[in-house]
Amino acid sequence: MVHHGGRAGGDGRAGLDDVARLAGVSLSTASRALNNHPQVAAATRERVLAAAAGLDYVVSPDASRLAGRSSRARVAVVVPHLSRWFFGRLLEGLEVGLRDGDPDGGAGVDQLLFLVGDVAGRRAFFEDLPARRRVDAAVVVGFEVDEVEQRRLELLGVSIVSAGGPREPFPSVTVDDLRAGRQAVDHLVHLGHRRIGMLATADPADRGPDLRSRAYRTALTDAGVPDDPDLVVRVPFGPAGGAEGMGRLLGLRRPPTAVFAYSDEVAAGAVRAVQRAGLRVPDDISVVGIDDHPLAGLLDLTTVAQPVHEQGVVAGGMVRVLLAGGDPPPSQVLPTHLVLRGSTAPPGAAGRAET
Amino acid sequence: MVHHGGRAGGDGRAGLDDVARLAGVSLSTASRALNNHPQVAAATRERVLAAAAGLDYVVSPDASRLAGRSSRARVAVVVPHLSRWFFGRLLEGLEVGLRDGDPDGGAGVDQLLFLVGDVAGRRAFFEDLPARRRVDAAVVVGFEVDEVEQRRLELLGVSIVSAGGPREPFPSVTVDDLRAGRQAVDHLVHLGHRRIGMLATADPADRGPDLRSRAYRTALTDAGVPDDPDLVVRVPFGPAGGAEGMGRLLGLRRPPTAVFAYSDEVAAGAVRAVQRAGLRVPDDISVVGIDDHPLAGLLDLTTVAQPVHEQGVVAGGMVRVLLAGGDPPPSQVLPTHLVLRGSTAPPGAAGRAET
Repeated sequence: MVHHGGRAGGDGRAGLDDVARLAGVSLSTASRALNNHPQVAAATRERVLAAAAGLDYVVSPDASRLAGRSSRARVAVVVPHLSRWFFGRLLEGLEVGLRDGDPDGGAGVDQLLFLVGDVAGRRAFFEDLPARRRVDAAVVVGFEVDEVEQRRLELLGVSIVSAGGPREPFPSVTVDDLRAGRQAVDHLVHLGHRRIGMLATADPADRGPDLRSRAYRTALTDAGVPDDPDLVVRVPFGPAGGAEGMGRLLGLRRPPTAVFAYSDEVAAGAVRAVQRAGLRVPDDISVVGIDDHPLAGLLDLTTVAQPVHEQGVVAGGMVRVLLAGGDPPPSQVLPTHLVLRGSTAPPGAAGRAET
Repeated sequence: MVHHGGRAGGDGRAGLDDVARLAGVSLSTASRALNNHPQVAAATRERVLAAAAGLDYVVSPDASRLAGRSSRARVAVVVPHLSRWFFGRLLEGLEVGLRDGDPDGGAGVDQLLFLVGDVAGRRAFFEDLPARRRVDAAVVVGFEVDEVEQRRLELLGVSIVSAGGPREPFPSVTVDDLRAGRQAVDHLVHLGHRRIGMLATADPADRGPDLRSRAYRTALTDAGVPDDPDLVVRVPFGPAGGAEGMGRLLGLRRPPTAVFAYSDEVAAGAVRAVQRAGLRVPDDISVVGIDDHPLAGLLDLTTVAQPVHEQGVVAGGMVRVLLAGGDPPPSQVLPTHLVLRGSTAPPGAAGRAET
């Protein structure tokens, strides 16, 4: 049986030889005792264990793994951003989900963080992984895993869970972005708006937001509202993008009476742009977002709430099932709901004249 | 020499025996070749390496560590929160700092994420660590490490870097919270305010914000402004705390004409509370925060900017120095500066009557 740790190093750590000496046994006996070898007398094993405890001796994790003991599972947590609330919040939920039910309080799982800020970073992550085979599972948050990468991970036996992003052949937890988009736009339609703008994602690979654009279009179609391409402005993520996009919408010969922004952080910038132009939300123009970001309450923003923390918790639960060798758990779609605040209202007199 | 990997498992991974077979050598020769044993002929080693590459065989990381090869450094990243912008942003900087200069693009370092949400979680982290001795370094973000924990880590030979929080005997990168607080309050004093409120942290263990409270007091003292305990309201972190605290200040018989909030997220709630009360910022009351959170621009909030991403980058650089066995790098204090926006102005007529 392999057992590392014979040297008590200059770093002050107790080695196996220190334990053996304290217990008054040979090195090999100490090793067998700690490895629960059946041939070691109970009294001897007790003495060795007591010596080990007294010296704060710990079996080298590497050696114990090789000796066949269970070792800590390694879970890669792969995110494109960390400074965006969505990702931080989901990761907080993931921590809860990974820990839940574990008597060790989560001490059995190592979470390895991989920040993959761009496509090159993601590609590097997937290429790097095979060469090291260092994780047992990976939670991919908010981005797609293409077929090449998928196949690679399957060959390595790395279980994947996708959270807060596209649904893949592997277990995922997400929200129905089409439905969330419908909830937002149908709300504007129900208020009486017919000239509705959209601040859409500039990144067609950003699948969730892209689905929200689709929802916008079908909601208008179902409401019998004609499509006007001028009313759709593509913007990068964030308040600056929202402000810039709203500026363009306000500059149209016939501006919209309401705007749907694909994310609250975009909506927040849009609202500010309206206010800086000396106009008022919702009196002059209504704005609705998606997320129910903590910002939304602050800005009195009507939005569609998605359960972000819960997506993380569910993802953690799925990982635990896979690590335990269970069948891939079924994917889950968590519900979203409209949160009415003060940024939406029926169109003003000018708007109603449109219909 | 210890070498794991003899079994080609049912999981499809190539084992050392597969490599040996393909290269036409014995198991022990294959092992010695991969361990760069000097007695293996160059041609033989080439054949074994080629076979290993062809089979995507990888030396078990555990075995290579035991064989004395360099292995990936394990860096614990210990944070109390992830959904707060500050922590996510600092971690993004840390990732850059850990990767910088590494030809492997950061692939040489494993970042293990530890979310320690409360005091119990932090205690558990430090108690857990010795039992596993699983990290080479730890970056502690935004909380204190007490003497007991410190000693424990020293005994284990775990290098610590503290970021975005208190300065400790170990290398740290932080901002000067006293100076930042002075920048904020002196700005209000310079505008002519004499009745200045503070939204202070409710948590005296939250050292940075606690220093900002101290800065508030000394700034008033230096300006010859009398101390009024009614003007200091302790609130929990976040917009709700800020709103509640501002409500209390507005309810005083003599409300302040300006308020210093210990964090932009608190200030944001305070600003909203003023607006919901039908009053205006800065016309009726000035508000200044600390951070230059992305929110601040959105809300036109005057604040004191701190370089959060940069604290992470510097922390990452310090970790690399320590992992390379260098002397503990000197601690760094990064500068802060006032960012003037629209939430502060000289006191209105009512305020000026105070002086």
